[in-house]
Amino acid sequence: MTKPSIPKGTRDFGQLEMARRNYIFDTIKGVFSLYGFQQIETPAMENIGTLMGKYGEEGDKLLFRIQNSGEKASLAPEKGLRYDLTVPFARYVVQHREEISFPFKRFQIQPVWRADRPQKGRYREFYQCDVDVIGSDSLIGELELIQIVEEVYRRLGINVCLHINNRKILAGIAEVIGAPDKIVDITVAIDKLDKIGVEAVNNELRERGLSNEAVEALQPILHLSGTTAEKLGSLKSILASSEIGLKGVAEMEEVFALVESTKTASLKEECHFSIELDLCLARGLNYYTGAIFEVKALDAQIGSITGGGRYDNLTGIFGLPNVSGVGISFGADRIYDVLTELDLFPKELQSTTQVLFATFGQDELRYALGWAKELRANGIAVEVFPEPAKMKKQMSYADAKQIPWVAIVGGDEMAQNKVMLKNMTSGEQQLVDLENLNNRVLFESRD
Amino acid sequence: MTKPSIPKGTRDFGQLEMARRNYIFDTIKGVFSLYGFQQIETPAMENIGTLMGKYGEEGDKLLFRIQNSGEKASLAPEKGLRYDLTVPFARYVVQHREEISFPFKRFQIQPVWRADRPQKGRYREFYQCDVDVIGSDSLIGELELIQIVEEVYRRLGINVCLHINNRKILAGIAEVIGAPDKIVDITVAIDKLDKIGVEAVNNELRERGLSNEAVEALQPILHLSGTTAEKLGSLKSILASSEIGLKGVAEMEEVFALVESTKTASLKEECHFSIELDLCLARGLNYYTGAIFEVKALDAQIGSITGGGRYDNLTGIFGLPNVSGVGISFGADRIYDVLTELDLFPKELQSTTQVLFATFGQDELRYALGWAKELRANGIAVEVFPEPAKMKKQMSYADAKQIPWVAIVGGDEMAQNKVMLKNMTSGEQQLVDLENLNNRVLFESRD
Repeated sequence: MTKPSIPKGTRDFGQLEMARRNYIFDTIKGVFSLYGFQQIETPAMENIGTLMGKYGEEGDKLLFRIQNSGEKASLAPEKGLRYDLTVPFARYVVQHREEISFPFKRFQIQPVWRADRPQKGRYREFYQCDVDVIGSDSLIGELELIQIVEEVYRRLGINVCLHINNRKILAGIAEVIGAPDKIVDITVAIDKLDKIGVEAVNNELRERGLSNEAVEALQPILHLSGTTAEKLGSLKSILASSEIGLKGVAEMEEVFALVESTKTASLKEECHFSIELDLCLARGLNYYTGAIFEVKALDAQIGSITGGGRYDNLTGIFGLPNVSGVGISFGADRIYDVLTELDLFPKELQSTTQVLFATFGQDELRYALGWAKELRANGIAVEVFPEPAKMKKQMSYADAKQIPWVAIVGGDEMAQNKVMLKNMTSGEQQLVDLENLNNRVLFESRD
Repeated sequence: MTKPSIPKGTRDFGQLEMARRNYIFDTIKGVFSLYGFQQIETPAMENIGTLMGKYGEEGDKLLFRIQNSGEKASLAPEKGLRYDLTVPFARYVVQHREEISFPFKRFQIQPVWRADRPQKGRYREFYQCDVDVIGSDSLIGELELIQIVEEVYRRLGINVCLHINNRKILAGIAEVIGAPDKIVDITVAIDKLDKIGVEAVNNELRERGLSNEAVEALQPILHLSGTTAEKLGSLKSILASSEIGLKGVAEMEEVFALVESTKTASLKEECHFSIELDLCLARGLNYYTGAIFEVKALDAQIGSITGGGRYDNLTGIFGLPNVSGVGISFGADRIYDVLTELDLFPKELQSTTQVLFATFGQDELRYALGWAKELRANGIAVEVFPEPAKMKKQMSYADAKQIPWVAIVGGDEMAQNKVMLKNMTSGEQQLVDLENLNNRVLFESRD
């Protein structure tokens, strides 16, 4: 029999990986809750009509389709697996609009599936972690998402820079350089500036049909520098003739003012957080209409670890037009990689069990069961090795699971109503009674 | 455009349902952790060969298959969606056996998919919540699962009876009534005793090829009564000639002795928990080889809410024979229904947000953002209504989300550096400063 395996591009998560993933999700959820975002879940399968045509031609090809059951098996599939959380969210909002109190602040943490070619860091099943507020065009939505980003990464201990831009500014730029119909081409090309450099971007713009004059007119904008206020000031002159462009600048001014006005002294601290107006940030997705964000870790080369933006018509595809929202998505896999690379996971995630009882015989084993029950009643996570196996085997088990304390029970200990408590880090052993064991485990942290 | 919908047999979970589901899962996870069980996750998709033939002919038909992508689309599907958590767990254990420390104590909470005909209480996507210890035949496994059941239902406030039986006893019964090859037929028929009554069971046994003598011989066993000790005593006589039967009795005696010896005085309390030796409990699945369990809620008519048992060869199907394990599965949907029917969900699950700021103008709105930030830094979940909308609209939002406190900010309040704090339950209003607001929200529980 061949060794069993799983489909390519998918993963098993063992205990340590799960503990670490839960640490990331719990940290993020804790911050979402502080802002009144509440969790929803949608089914893994959506009707194929809900998914098709929402992710472009390429996306349609990457949908996992479910074979129909019974006599319909040979017909075209009626269901597909969720490709992202955004389209199901839009579907949810329209379907449940009568029950929802707007503005609707929701978060959602679920896997998505894409029939992509698997490669390093790209999986066919991965979790997305999305937070959105929909049903209000107030820029307080943008402010809160920025505050959430800051707080999440402060709690995780990751230094980050949040890059921000505005699709209206990009539209204004397209207008003033005389290529208003080329906004998509311009954003797609600009989006690659970091990766391919300015010359290649300019070539691509010309290939996409921009005139030499338009490309020329774009250059000062690509090279805009100075403080945020200076950049916004320059943009106001450059975009003076574009109504939408000026609206984008005004939105950015307000967002920066909101961030500035809610800065508190207590936030000058251990973790670096900055916001940068980045006119070369475009983001690929076409549904964005206002602010767009990307977050980069300063101490790891890994690309964007969080991204999102404002959209004015996401629910329009399901028949509910003109509902504005703003949202971001935390990239759990990349955050995991950053925390691993920078060694920032808390050490105590290694084991949930605090004490293992290791015993020399059946009587001792039964004796240990009583102690275990008492300790668990005090909230201490306890295991009793289920057989009086060789002591070496029991100790190896504790080592492998990184359990910090082992309570050894032999006949002598039992006769004194005590156990031999071993600190697995220091190797130190001490004969203790139940109360003493309880207190040491509760109050002595693992070194 | 038609109103969007989801595939039949699947569900969206809104905020309140999610809060309630998380309450169930978090309660269960908290208890699992006390016993050193750790979480794993496996992919939604498994290779079709991993799933096929594991759930009987009927099960094979109920597998959701994923259409292959690209040029293989017309070929037989290579992947299917997880049908339960047991087979993926067995696959996981075999695949990762070199990394695992045995006994391996894992839990797993993930959705499964079945192409069943949807009906009330039966879904095509639902969560399973499994806990198993594998790699030891010690009956301490059974003991711990019983303790976990007791503690989970104590925390949830549900009165339960745990029914227990042993497949070896059932095998012994088949032997002594002269139908050792009919063990499966006997268990399938006995399993229906509760539902169809003794006469119908006897008819079914005859239809399944049992002789009249065998059915006759079975009757005293179906009607065995008395205390657990009396039942086990009678069984010892009845099964005197069956080695496996006597082994089953001995196992049950030991499990009951373990439970008895770890009972603590503190457990005579608010919640009823009892264990009953139930010789009519059979459980459908054929991989069980020892103890089998089912838990019933005493105050709700809903069938089994938790079930499981001992298996000696689950990993054999993947090439790793003779590994014994024991596990149970908590039925989250049924537990949800019981908690709803008995009104046992904690009231505070209705809202995570503790304070909503409602404001009369843009200046007040900006002012509220500063307060919100301070309160959040103290761990209080706060929302700021993102626009100075009509006060009625802002209050309706608080009502709909069941937010217990609303902090109203107008020009007068702002001038005094205070807010008008309204208790949404009592209707009482009071002018408070930031410290006072903080303390009232933190220390005054919602009535």
